[in-house]
Amino acid sequence: MENSSVAKATLGRIPQYLAFLKDLSPETTPYISATTISKALNLGEVQVRKDLAMISGAGKPRRGYATEELIEKLEDCLGYKRLTSAVLVGAGRLGRALLQYGGFKQFGVEILAAFDSNVRVMTYDSKTEILPMHLFDAFCREHTIRLGIITVGEGSAQLVCDQMVQSGITAIWNFAPCKLQVPAGVLLQNENLALSLAHLRNQLLRCQDATDEQNI
Amino acid sequence: MENSSVAKATLGRIPQYLAFLKDLSPETTPYISATTISKALNLGEVQVRKDLAMISGAGKPRRGYATEELIEKLEDCLGYKRLTSAVLVGAGRLGRALLQYGGFKQFGVEILAAFDSNVRVMTYDSKTEILPMHLFDAFCREHTIRLGIITVGEGSAQLVCDQMVQSGITAIWNFAPCKLQVPAGVLLQNENLALSLAHLRNQLLRCQDATDEQNI
Repeated sequence: MENSSVAKATLGRIPQYLAFLKDLSPETTPYISATTISKALNLGEVQVRKDLAMISGAGKPRRGYATEELIEKLEDCLGYKRLTSAVLVGAGRLGRALLQYGGFKQFGVEILAAFDSNVRVMTYDSKTEILPMHLFDAFCREHTIRLGIITVGEGSAQLVCDQMVQSGITAIWNFAPCKLQVPAGVLLQNENLALSLAHLRNQLLRCQDATDEQNI
Repeated sequence: MENSSVAKATLGRIPQYLAFLKDLSPETTPYISATTISKALNLGEVQVRKDLAMISGAGKPRRGYATEELIEKLEDCLGYKRLTSAVLVGAGRLGRALLQYGGFKQFGVEILAAFDSNVRVMTYDSKTEILPMHLFDAFCREHTIRLGIITVGEGSAQLVCDQMVQSGITAIWNFAPCKLQVPAGVLLQNENLALSLAHLRNQLLRCQDATDEQNI
């Protein structure tokens, strides 16, 4: 499959490409070049060329890409035709923030339901339900869920992780600040927010040190 | 400065090293080797050697690192002695989730206050105050804030970003799903949560496709 090998940075630019291309009229712009796109979006031309080549192969010489076809390939890449269902466990502040976050569908992921050990059945935001944990396994099997998001605290994250694996989930996005053990074949992606902030802070300190040295 | 050039992945392992080292008694373990640490934490030995070399130079031959000194260097690296103050703008669900998140101090960052255009002065979680935006500039100048976190929606993110820059902030961690313009010299780190999820989903699809191919 072409789209599965697409790099994270490329993925991140696709919504920009789509927004631009969809604004064009197919009548007046049946073909579009990487150069035109890169200028319009203020992106490096080499980068745009690489992105489009990865997603849609080489354009036609002197004409570029057929606009309609390029739009379709870009949408494919984001999974417009193949929405992946996910569940979230831990409906605290972070969990609810993610439920509220509208940007996931744009990248082909839909959070079907959230689970929490502390709730009875309730409807959240008129779309997503927050369900008690005892319904978790049945829900995952019924909807063939493969993608799980962990937003519980450190103390119960491994337990939730094990439950996810038992219920057939094979890709886990973990926000709990701890190391989880998963069996071979299960994808685990840790999202350490503190680490991102620490990285930015260290860059900031380096800049400040450079300024201090100049001032001495 | 040694610590400012430390890679993000290394930074992420430091809390683990510290937790392990601080459990040791300095009397019985005055020196510790990278081999011992890597075995105890189930990490690759080469990786641990590289991490420690970057942070604390080479250990002594046959003895390794002086435990107490290593702890101090690791703590330095996380900024235990040099806490960086930050402010957050946008006290919605995500903003409050970040305020609640306890992990930042571990990496040398303290969120001093949150701001929101929709609030009067209020105390949040008995530690952090959520303040109205008209107090933002004065607060940042009074506390010499250099690090700002944006958790407002796409519509007001650029405005908030401009206000931060005007108030002396030089490093911005942006959660709004949009491209921000900052002057030269201002660090901008975009945190696109949807993108992380999209990346995991694409890996999942690749694995599923591989399985499907095997099954055919």
